[in-house]
This record gives sequence, C-alpha cells and structure tokens, in this order.
Amino acid sequence: MADLNRPISFHLSHTDAESAARCGVLHTPHGDVETPVFMPVGTLGAVKGLDTAAVRATGTRMVLGNAYHLALRPGEEIVRELGGLHAFMNWQGPILTDSGGFQLYSLAKMTNVTEQGASFRSHIDGSLLELTPERSVEIQEALGSDVAMTLDHVVSLPNSPETIVDAMERTIRWAARCRDARRRDDQALFAIVQGGLDVELRLACSARLIEMDFDGFAIGGLSVGETPEEMERILRHTVSALPADKPRYLMGVGRPQDLLQAIGYGVDMFDCVMPTRNGRNGMAFTDRGTLKLRNQRHQRDPRPLEEGCPCLACRHSRAYLRHLFMAGEMLGPILLSIHNLTYYQRLMSAARTAILEDRFTAFCTQRHGDWSA
Amino acid sequence: MADLNRPISFHLSHTDAESAARCGVLHTPHGDVETPVFMPVGTLGAVKGLDTAAVRATGTRMVLGNAYHLALRPGEEIVRELGGLHAFMNWQGPILTDSGGFQLYSLAKMTNVTEQGASFRSHIDGSLLELTPERSVEIQEALGSDVAMTLDHVVSLPNSPETIVDAMERTIRWAARCRDARRRDDQALFAIVQGGLDVELRLACSARLIEMDFDGFAIGGLSVGETPEEMERILRHTVSALPADKPRYLMGVGRPQDLLQAIGYGVDMFDCVMPTRNGRNGMAFTDRGTLKLRNQRHQRDPRPLEEGCPCLACRHSRAYLRHLFMAGEMLGPILLSIHNLTYYQRLMSAARTAILEDRFTAFCTQRHGDWSA
Repeated sequence: MADLNRPISFHLSHTDAESAARCGVLHTPHGDVETPVFMPVGTLGAVKGLDTAAVRATGTRMVLGNAYHLALRPGEEIVRELGGLHAFMNWQGPILTDSGGFQLYSLAKMTNVTEQGASFRSHIDGSLLELTPERSVEIQEALGSDVAMTLDHVVSLPNSPETIVDAMERTIRWAARCRDARRRDDQALFAIVQGGLDVELRLACSARLIEMDFDGFAIGGLSVGETPEEMERILRHTVSALPADKPRYLMGVGRPQDLLQAIGYGVDMFDCVMPTRNGRNGMAFTDRGTLKLRNQRHQRDPRPLEEGCPCLACRHSRAYLRHLFMAGEMLGPILLSIHNLTYYQRLMSAARTAILEDRFTAFCTQRHGDWSA
Repeated sequence: MADLNRPISFHLSHTDAESAARCGVLHTPHGDVETPVFMPVGTLGAVKGLDTAAVRATGTRMVLGNAYHLALRPGEEIVRELGGLHAFMNWQGPILTDSGGFQLYSLAKMTNVTEQGASFRSHIDGSLLELTPERSVEIQEALGSDVAMTLDHVVSLPNSPETIVDAMERTIRWAARCRDARRRDDQALFAIVQGGLDVELRLACSARLIEMDFDGFAIGGLSVGETPEEMERILRHTVSALPADKPRYLMGVGRPQDLLQAIGYGVDMFDCVMPTRNGRNGMAFTDRGTLKLRNQRHQRDPRPLEEGCPCLACRHSRAYLRHLFMAGEMLGPILLSIHNLTYYQRLMSAARTAILEDRFTAFCTQRHGDWSA
C-alpha cells in the first residue's frame, strides 16, 4: 500500500534468513516496482538502440535519465512542454533522474566547482551551463521523474583526503539546498552518500543525510577508480548504516557479480551502462560467463547465446550475431543490448525469488560457480 | 494454387480497368506474397537496424539479400551450414537474392569484367573474388533463396552505345549460363533485362530472354544516372514487352511516386534501399511528402510523423524523433527505418486495394496531390 504522505513509498517484503539481502516494493506515481531492481540507463531519453517496447520486453520496469544531458539536449523546457519525460520518451513506468553530479567527475576537465555550484563548458557546443543544486532540482522537476537525486560532488579515486572531505561536506550542503528547492510533491528525492574510501567519512556522511529525512539514499562515488576490494569494504559498511525502511541505491555499478554482492549487503536499486555499452561492443553476458562475439570460435556456432533465454537475440545463432558484428551491422549492438538487459533482469528476478525462499547465499554461490566454470 | 512443375508460380488476380496495373499472388516455397510487393533490402542478411520481427511488423512479406556481399561475409558455405539464409537471419518468409551484377556497377573501380565473369578486389580486405554466372548461381543455391537472379552486366548511364550493347549481349549470354548452371529445383531464377536507354535494345533483350523461359523477368540498369523521364520511357516500353503471366520486377527503384508509376505500367515487384537509407539519414516519408527530422521546425512538434500510422515511431512525437537525431541516438535511425518501411508497405497495400477496385489511376492522382500539397 502506498504511503499517501510521500510521493513514493517503500515496503519491505522479506529479508533473507542468512544475509542482509531483501525484497521489497517501491510504490511510485508511475506504478510499483519490485526490488532489488536494475534500471537501464537512458541518459538522453532513450536506452541506446531500444524502443521502449523493446526495453519493457527485457523485463525492465524502471529506467534512468540524466538531468545534465537532457538540460543540454533537448532542454528540459521542451520535455516539460511535451508532457514530461515519461510522455517524451513514451515510457509509462517509473523513471529516476540523476542530478548531473556524476558529470562533475566524468566531464571534470570541462568543469569548475564552487560552493555555489558547477560550471560546465558544454561538451556539445562549448556554451556555459551552470548547475547549482537548485537548478538541478528545477531541471528534474521539469522532467517530472518519479525519483530525483540531489546534486553531489563526485571526485575521482584515489584522491587527497582534503579533496574527499571537501567534496563530501559540499555534497551534504548541496543535499540540503536540493531539499529546500523542491516544489513538486509527486517526486521523491534521494540523497547521495559520498566520502571516498574512508569508512568513517562514509558513516558520518550517511548519518548527517539521514537526519535530513530524504525519501531514499544512494551510495555514490564508487566504480570511479578504486579496486573491487575497496568498493566492497565501503559498500558493506555504508549500506548497514542506512535506514532499513528506505530504499538503498548503489549508483553506476556494475557487473552481475557486483550486483549480487551488493544485494547481499542490502542494496535495493542499481543502474549501470554495462549491459548496453558492453553489448554494443560485442560482449554478451551468460550464465557461463561472458562471450566476445567477434571471436573466431563463434563463426559456425549454431547455438543461441543462452539456452532458454526468451530474448530476441536468442532466436538467432551465435554465428549470425558474430556475422552482424563483423559486417558492422547495427543490428548486432541492438540484439546484444537486448540480450544483456534481459540477462540482468532475469538475474534480478532470480535473486528476488532466492531471497523470498531464504536461499540467497546458496544462489550466489551457484551463480559464481557457473560464471567461472 | 501453386504450379507443381515450378519452384514458384505467379497467378494474376486482377488487372486494373484503366491501366496496366495488376494484382497477383506469388507462390513460393516460403509462402505466398501478394503483388505488387515491396522488398526491403537486407544486403548482409539483415535489414539495417531491424530484427526480423520488426521487419515483419512493418507489413513486409518478402526481403532481399545479396549474393556478392554474403559470399564475402560470412561466406555462403557458413550460411548453408547454418540452414540457409532463411534460418541464418531467422526470416520465415520468401527471400530474393540479387546475383552481384549490381556490384559490377556500384564497385566498378574494383572490378574487371571479361566474358568469363567479373573479378572483384574485395572492398573489405582486397582479396580477389571471381564472380562468374556459374559461381553466382552456386552462391545463391547455397543461400537457398526462393528467387535467384541471373548475373547481369550493369553499366552506368550515360555510356557509349558500344558499351551498352556489349553489356546487354553479355547479360544475355550470362543469363543462359546461369540457367544451365542450376541444380536446385526449389529455387526460381529470374532474368534481368538490360539495354541502357535504347528502347530497341531493351525490346531485343527482352525477346531473347523470354525465349529462354525464365520464372520471371526483371528490369535492371535503371536508377543509375538517367533522368526520371528517361527511366519512365524505358520502363513503359519494356514492361509491356514482358509476358503477362510471369512476375515483373523493377530493380532498385525507388521513391513512392516511382513505385506507383511502375505499378501503373504493370510491374509486380520492387526493392530499394531508399526507405531504410533515407530513414537512417533523418528523412521520413508521409502522405504529405517527406519530412527532414533534423529541421528546427520539429523541435516542439507533438504530432506523430503520420496520424493513424500504426508503427512504433508514430507512438512518439516529431519533437522526440528530432531529439534522437540531434543527440546522435541510434534509436532515431531505427525508428525512421521502421516508419518508412511501414509507409512503403501501407502504400503497396493501398495500391493493391485500388487495383482490385479498378480505381488505380484515381488513387495515383490523389496520392500525387497529397504529396505535393
């Protein structure tokens, strides 16, 4: 049942008996979503190469857009005029929009950060874009996503302690400004925990954001240069410090094994470009590990990528898919994006079932065994 | 009812009362196809950017592949091993394969033609490919298309009379060699009429090919540099010289108005890259003429490309489609390819209905009026 006092609400259905993995339902103005949930990335209002009907057919129920990119192209006012991002991209389900904070990291060479906000030289035409916390909220409200994110200050890792503390403190101040700038009551706002690879900083950041009572909490600033072990340590400690009754979102991560690990620590939401980007580059995810479709060994292979996979790509042979990549046919990237998203969504679905049946740890062990077989 | 003595058979259903336009059914080993029929081009075993399920959803019932390109990549023996081109590309309907003759024109700089055949320097790796009439039939039989084409000698226009006569005579000798090289009895073979812009040559070529009793006849060597008026004249005279009881195929043409004109002269089959290529470049066909989606005037336009069009693209606004092109999202080319193929197939369907109702001329007049409105 939805909480009438909040734009979204989160209800825990079950927590695994042997781990912190949990199943829940996220109620949003555009429908309910079972968690753990994986959100494909539709930066510019499209999951690359896939119409929304194809996106839905992969099992996807919630997608991600990006405030920075959509403000530049086509401009959030055009999206608002055309009925908001849902109508614009013809996606009926929930949408989460990132605030543009990640672009402070990914476009750092073109960015100048002050206490007021970030100034970007547009990567398209060199024009100046000011992104303050207030402006980020304004953009996201014009887009009309179900979940908006606070503007955070993402820095690369490793970095100096001073830089990391400074970015964390600014992230907290900016989160408060985002909260104060909200005008819409039908859009949730999640805050983002920063603090680099310092557990104490992460816990301090979490505690101060929790006091501000956001609708959910995200862990940001990971997968930006650190080792898997470092990410694991930060993730484990940070997740356990977040309130159990709010959704927890790990931003920009990752491989299937990363998702299972994070679910085991109690993460509910994910986004990552990996299934689509790697798909476009000819890599397919399967239960037996990854396949590189350009490899000569697939030249005459009549098998589908994955037996039993219901996706469009798996109606074809590996030999055909390889041919598409070797011939430069755009259908290759399209079909592998479809397959990889279907793979991720089937993994999430299987994980949810395993949690409900209190066998999540055994499920992970089996999957890891298969992947490395 | 299919003719049991031939791999395909053609039955005329109706001829328009006021023109030579006609409706028929082409019976093939992979199902029946109503004519006039438009075949999208799947040169390399894929209609660019579209899975076969999407191709079928446009109303397409028959597609085209290319012997030259598939022999180079992935190689026709690999296609044969994987069950033939139908299985390879997962297309259950009829397929026509071009012989490679058009590549003598389009890749002329890398080609050397002798009486024996054509030698190509591969446009991929520079290796030498010999394409004789016998080899073209061998490739097409390995691919297992429903309709194979004879190897013809296509030259650019304008050209010297000697060159055109020489190419026409060679086309006839090569057609005979193709016929003699056939081994499969489940594949039709169409001959191709050449002769440049000389009506007498075209009629002579037609007469000599008709004597050899092919399963169908194509008009080749048009849309290679001549004016629309020149094409119209050649087309009109040539079509009327072809036997009424065999399918007539106009190769590589063209715009919607070209198709209607040719149907009016009695052409039954078409292929052209225009709907997909122009779609990839941001041009959409509509009943009110073409739209260039990159144009600024579509920036805020909430309308679909075409009211009442059932295609996936028309679930979106022109503003969204423009945004996809401006942002370089591959979904733009995909959606416009879908729309344009749907447009062509709906045009063919409407033309068939108009012919059956003896109002094809009025139908053409109305469409021309709409296009230029």
